Amino acid sequence: MADKRQIVTLLTDFGTSDYFVSSVKGAIFCVNPNVELIDITHAIPPQDIFAGAFMLRNAYNIFPRFSIHMAIVDPTVGSARRPIIVMTDSYNFIGPDNGIFSYIYQIEQVNRVVEIKAEHYYRSPVSSTFHARDIFAPVVGWLTKGVDPTKMGEVIEDYVKFNIPEPKEFGPNLIKGHVIHVDHFGNCVTNISENELTYERMDQNKVLVINNQQVRLFCTHYAECPDGQPCALFGSANLLEICIPKGSAAHTLGANRGTEVAIHFA
Amino acid sequence: MADKRQIVTLLTDFGTSDYFVSSVKGAIFCVNPNVELIDITHAIPPQDIFAGAFMLRNAYNIFPRFSIHMAIVDPTVGSARRPIIVMTDSYNFIGPDNGIFSYIYQIEQVNRVVEIKAEHYYRSPVSSTFHARDIFAPVVGWLTKGVDPTKMGEVIEDYVKFNIPEPKEFGPNLIKGHVIHVDHFGNCVTNISENELTYERMDQNKVLVINNQQVRLFCTHYAECPDGQPCALFGSANLLEICIPKGSAAHTLGANRGTEVAIHFA
Amino acid sequence: MADKRQIVTLLTDFGTSDYFVSSVKGAIFCVNPNVELIDITHAIPPQDIFAGAFMLRNAYNIFPRFSIHMAIVDPTVGSARRPIIVMTDSYNFIGPDNGIFSYIYQIEQVNRVVEIKAEHYYRSPVSSTFHARDIFAPVVGWLTKGVDPTKMGEVIEDYVKFNIPEPKEFGPNLIKGHVIHVDHFGNCVTNISENELTYERMDQNKVLVINNQQVRLFCTHYAECPDGQPCALFGSANLLEICIPKGSAAHTLGANRGTEVAIHFA
Repeated sequence: MADKRQIVTLLTDFGTSDYFVSSVKGAIFCVNPNVELIDITHAIPPQDIFAGAFMLRNAYNIFPRFSIHMAIVDPTVGSARRPIIVMTDSYNFIGPDNGIFSYIYQIEQVNRVVEIKAEHYYRSPVSSTFHARDIFAPVVGWLTKGVDPTKMGEVIEDYVKFNIPEPKEFGPNLIKGHVIHVDHFGNCVTNISENELTYERMDQNKVLVINNQQVRLFCTHYAECPDGQPCALFGSANLLEICIPKGSAAHTLGANRGTEVAIHFA
Repeated sequence: MADKRQIVTLLTDFGTSDYFVSSVKGAIFCVNPNVELIDITHAIPPQDIFAGAFMLRNAYNIFPRFSIHMAIVDPTVGSARRPIIVMTDSYNFIGPDNGIFSYIYQIEQVNRVVEIKAEHYYRSPVSSTFHARDIFAPVVGWLTKGVDPTKMGEVIEDYVKFNIPEPKEFGPNLIKGHVIHVDHFGNCVTNISENELTYERMDQNKVLVINNQQVRLFCTHYAECPDGQPCALFGSANLLEICIPKGSAAHTLGANRGTEVAIHFA
Repeated sequence: MADKRQIVTLLTDFGTSDYFVSSVKGAIFCVNPNVELIDITHAIPPQDIFAGAFMLRNAYNIFPRFSIHMAIVDPTVGSARRPIIVMTDSYNFIGPDNGIFSYIYQIEQVNRVVEIKAEHYYRSPVSSTFHARDIFAPVVGWLTKGVDPTKMGEVIEDYVKFNIPEPKEFGPNLIKGHVIHVDHFGNCVTNISENELTYERMDQNKVLVINNQQVRLFCTHYAECPDGQPCALFGSANLLEICIPKGSAAHTLGANRGTEVAIHFA
């Protein structure tokens, strides 16, 4: 049997119609051709750091331990924005220090955050516009070869975190959150988790209101809901989703990222 | 030389803008990181089982023997719909028992269909909405490690087949079929095969009518047709296609999946 | 450690919603399953040979030496168009002889161009419409197994090159070029390189005019430009790009491929 190949995931806003993603892969292979590269997605809307952070949140922890997660949504190449490696017990994350790892900081025990400074690991010359290829990719290559992340630069403490939007409780009978992601099927993923809508409260009489429309069906499986009916359930991201089986909840309800979602208990 | 890695193909309606596909891959790698994963497509229209079945028909048999084909278009996660493995001499197919393997049942000699029930091979816990990640992916992982499919559950006979839409012959001078797929280039793939439009009949005087428009050119290569002219030829799926070289037949002829196609012989 | 796997890149106009790309990969794996396949892009507009050639130009040379680059944008399958292998010191390129390698001929020292004729390396039978799967893919497979390209056919000299569109200088104070690519972010990539806009001239007083709009900011990094302001800089393709940080230059300026770009020096 062959040895286990190091897994590297890629998450960017590069799209797939240009050469950008392939250049990152090629640059990794130049350092270590014996790597398994997995695309998470490259369809993050351009410069949408929150969307990238949220997608990474949902994707990273299914991967085998010691995978490396590369997340590049980076509107300010060439600025003072620092390239960093975020080290946890299970994974290393690499990307720009612009908040894209905010969910990781919230969820994981972070051991160290390293600002990448070891230029001898970079491609030469480093272009002024494509650091994913010229800095991040070769550094990833060297990480997969076993170079310790702390050899790549200096530990920092002041890394950038954005505030993760949390739902709010207004007394015992009202929770307000909002849609933070509309997925490929038109499901509206909210920021309401089982922390707010606990197991006990799932049994209470309640109504969800989104865009002035009421959703009264709370389900555990898509198959419980009648086709075409909006329903709410906890999806694979462990967040409350509004979905319409065989339809698009976002389209039918006129909802988008940012749309408010309120749950009223009787 | 390294050993041959087991090939697993993936065909879904998950799109590529979410984390869904990568989660399936990550879950496979958790069981067996030494697998070669190949995307067929993830652009099957949501819940369109027929489109998934037809795409699988066109894709599966180019792959090396003993590849595993995973096909997940699954509008009813959490229902009584059963996860199954379809075993043929050359391949194992895995997906929901909702008809997505209907073409396989028609084309291949099926040795066994196994309903997957061996929960100890699943991820734990199994989510209520993402069986591709939590059931199908780990089972695929174990299959690639050599676990016999029959160890995954029980042989069933009553698996779901939909009726494959066949063209009809109306006397000796008329064949009616329809468009079953419009491809990326706008080619209109029909369900008319060489069974109906035999080699001998290709030589007969005939006209194809689609959407009230006549196609008189029957070719064997795209290059035989003048640019911009609709023509009919047998394409790579071994089905009659209407195409317009350097144009889109679907757009020009106003044709879609379902559009009737008639061939009149003189 | 496992051996280094041969890297093969794929660049096509096949899209990703059909089985086409996967069929090419499957056909390669049938010959050699121990290959690393990397997609450059499959979103080249149908039959747009120039776009394919330009994308290949930007992508190929990041890959490790001895990678094989497969580029298939091929409006005339079945015509007299020849399948070829272009051999350079660092790479082999394989695709149709329709000009798609024009930039390679300009940039690289080409050692030989071989017309592929060795039919015993093809799939059997060869379909009339899908040579990427039936001719190019198996030949690539055999190349990765070490078959010498010259064994695949005959050396030719009269391979097809299109004229690469070059900017023109009108006296010492005017350069005219045009947009040759609009990328995923809406950046307008021109054909103006550092050959025309030399390091010395970057310091001169100058204005760029595109679609009757003036661009006066010439930068070296995206981060130097104020958000929303059009600026010009040399991008990762080593060509002058007009971009709008956190916006789409193409959209804002109404520019497309072909739009004229003039630089006037004071």
